[in-house]
Amino acid sequence: MSMKWNSVLLLLQLSCYFSSGSCGKVLVWPTEYSHWMNMKTILDELGQRGHEVTVLTSSASIHVDPNKTSTIKFEVYPTSLSRDAFDAFVLMVVKKWERIPKDRIWLHLSEMQEIMWDFSDCMRNMCKDAVLNTKLMRKLKESKFDVVFADAIGPCGRPTVLLETMAKAEIWLIRSYWDFDFPRPLLPNFDFVGGFHCKPAKPLPKEMEDFAQSSGEHGVVVFTLGSMISNMPEERANVFASALAQIPQKVIWRFDGKKPDTLGANTRLYKWIPQNDLLGHPKTKAFITHGGGNGVYEAIYHGVPMVGMPLFADQPDNIARMMAKGAAVRLDFDTVSSTDMLNALKTVINDPLYKENIMRLSRINHDQPTKPLDRIVFWIEFVMRHRGAKHLRVAAHDLNWVQYHSLDVIGFLLACVATVIFAITKCCLLCCQKFAKTGKKEKRE
Amino acid sequence: MSMKWNSVLLLLQLSCYFSSGSCGKVLVWPTEYSHWMNMKTILDELGQRGHEVTVLTSSASIHVDPNKTSTIKFEVYPTSLSRDAFDAFVLMVVKKWERIPKDRIWLHLSEMQEIMWDFSDCMRNMCKDAVLNTKLMRKLKESKFDVVFADAIGPCGRPTVLLETMAKAEIWLIRSYWDFDFPRPLLPNFDFVGGFHCKPAKPLPKEMEDFAQSSGEHGVVVFTLGSMISNMPEERANVFASALAQIPQKVIWRFDGKKPDTLGANTRLYKWIPQNDLLGHPKTKAFITHGGGNGVYEAIYHGVPMVGMPLFADQPDNIARMMAKGAAVRLDFDTVSSTDMLNALKTVINDPLYKENIMRLSRINHDQPTKPLDRIVFWIEFVMRHRGAKHLRVAAHDLNWVQYHSLDVIGFLLACVATVIFAITKCCLLCCQKFAKTGKKEKRE
Repeated sequence: MSMKWNSVLLLLQLSCYFSSGSCGKVLVWPTEYSHWMNMKTILDELGQRGHEVTVLTSSASIHVDPNKTSTIKFEVYPTSLSRDAFDAFVLMVVKKWERIPKDRIWLHLSEMQEIMWDFSDCMRNMCKDAVLNTKLMRKLKESKFDVVFADAIGPCGRPTVLLETMAKAEIWLIRSYWDFDFPRPLLPNFDFVGGFHCKPAKPLPKEMEDFAQSSGEHGVVVFTLGSMISNMPEERANVFASALAQIPQKVIWRFDGKKPDTLGANTRLYKWIPQNDLLGHPKTKAFITHGGGNGVYEAIYHGVPMVGMPLFADQPDNIARMMAKGAAVRLDFDTVSSTDMLNALKTVINDPLYKENIMRLSRINHDQPTKPLDRIVFWIEFVMRHRGAKHLRVAAHDLNWVQYHSLDVIGFLLACVATVIFAITKCCLLCCQKFAKTGKKEKRE
Repeated sequence: MSMKWNSVLLLLQLSCYFSSGSCGKVLVWPTEYSHWMNMKTILDELGQRGHEVTVLTSSASIHVDPNKTSTIKFEVYPTSLSRDAFDAFVLMVVKKWERIPKDRIWLHLSEMQEIMWDFSDCMRNMCKDAVLNTKLMRKLKESKFDVVFADAIGPCGRPTVLLETMAKAEIWLIRSYWDFDFPRPLLPNFDFVGGFHCKPAKPLPKEMEDFAQSSGEHGVVVFTLGSMISNMPEERANVFASALAQIPQKVIWRFDGKKPDTLGANTRLYKWIPQNDLLGHPKTKAFITHGGGNGVYEAIYHGVPMVGMPLFADQPDNIARMMAKGAAVRLDFDTVSSTDMLNALKTVINDPLYKENIMRLSRINHDQPTKPLDRIVFWIEFVMRHRGAKHLRVAAHDLNWVQYHSLDVIGFLLACVATVIFAITKCCLLCCQKFAKTGKKEKRE
């Protein structure tokens, strides 16, 4: 079973610690940027339901800001890396990843490997700073948490290997669903919760609402490349702006760079946009996106067809899925021309199939026996209530690879067959020798 | 993935027929005995929610009685078999199955095969009487049903093979859950709904309640061998009765035969018992059962440890699972002595581990995000609302076995390797020949 690490949340039960009462103590191991924004929806919900949520985070953390939230407690541990250095490192990794040549397979793989080693080194150092901090570890132990809620993209553990951590997970919360994923076998302790962070749209800021309403029947196009990319080369910005200037829709573009010369009167630039509220706005006709998981799910939730310009990580894969389901057109960020972008926008806005397809995905997402966020909270509470979820855990986790592939059984059977063949051959040879001797004897006589 | 046919319900979408409105038309293909009792819970719920439920059943049907119910419509088709003949046939099959020697593997398999052929023949004839009845088929087509809800143990179809029917199923409702089953991979269109028929206990009839209350702190033991077996040989009845006479509990025994001579004052015989209400009674301490799926799930739901005496079909397997989970002791119906039964009862009643284990299973059953019966109704309504559930269907159903096992890919790769090896060998041989010739020439010169 293939697994996208990018889209997995783990629940680890600390069986030695269990507090009484119906409200539990949750220790959270998060990661940064969009992963944190996504996970915070769950932590807020847990906080509102009376659980005590403690987020373990390093002093270099960027988005995980202790001052920004009130219902969540933060346990900040010191790390040698400064916040600025960490931010610069991550942006450097992203930039490297975006620039990897897509058409030269060996170069692609070699550069991907380098990026992965760099990233893994950084994660390991952060993890070491936490688990080798004896004072911190003692404090955490004394806090008697009921459950660990971890983002699987940044695994960390008290000395362990990844496979062991994976096998210890009581519940796997997968950040996708069958609107986005293709059906495949799963395990009983998997729950597919994609789109749990999506909410009905709240009203837009007055100025933005007036601008959206001014679009009339043509409606609005929303353009953003995610929380990490708010800028781009001037040449690219001009290509996009000149394409956008030619459509009858109004365009709301999240962009923090120099105003492009080709910018049309129908396009407004914003340093920040309320993405979910905009995608849920009745005037919104299309979404130009880098294909990050959060944005794609908001587009599915609100039923907005997409023009995808994937940059790195799971983004190309996300857009490929949306294309396969007929809900998106893909463009290449580096090479796309104004004409290509104009055609792509016209296609997703005017061809009714794109709207039909994304609405079908939207209906699938909305029509579940239980809402995904409720299921997430249910499973976190379940693991606390029952000190785990062992009844959902396949026995395969306890097998080594020899046992898993039945090599021991196959080996034994082959040995049996070999023994039988050997015995039969030996018997035949003995018989032949005996007959041969008797024959010679008879001849001599 | 292994599958117990005994425990599967299918949902087939008739994509060509779709009625409007929020209430749909459901066509049901049921089977008899405990399967019908179990399925009827769902049909009653569908009826109460306003759906139009039509059960397709033969004139030989035993338990599916058109007169017994009001919310469900019946479409009875004529079949050559009489009701008495069908009943006698099924009881003969069961008797044969019970008497199969368990210790002689080849005889066991040969007799099992015979039973399966007999059963399959009977099912096929019944199915033929339905699908070849052109008047009936026209009437059904004109009724424009939204969904077919079928019991997979008696498959029937418009000319088809089992694999095709399986692949057409939109949703598989599996009559088990992870309290009963061992965790294993599953597909997205599987839902595990075991125990959906269980309900909180209703009050017992006055006489039975008084008898139960008279047991004091010792409590009650419930003994039944299911809806098909209400009688047994006199010798066996005496063995069981004499064991039951020696326990301090009161015993409620469903038994329709001659009153055993060894019957104790603590044991009362009943021709019929309200099984679910008795298992949910606070005085009930243990359940002596044949291990049928319905009874085992009622015991899990109400948390009653079991003494199992499996007779046929999935019963041995059900009891084996309950033993593995420490919630039951198994006895052999044909050979068990009074002492064995006495010891088994003492064990499950007095060893607290059995009660603990069955309570753990009970908690797992009760602690789900949505109740199983609600999920069943949800999926039936989903299939009607969305004209199927294609987004949950794995593409493997569209592959033949060569494609499924990637034999075409493996074959192509092997052919490539063979071609390369052939080419290299040919080249080497040519080179060798050339060098050899040159060598000879040089030698001659």
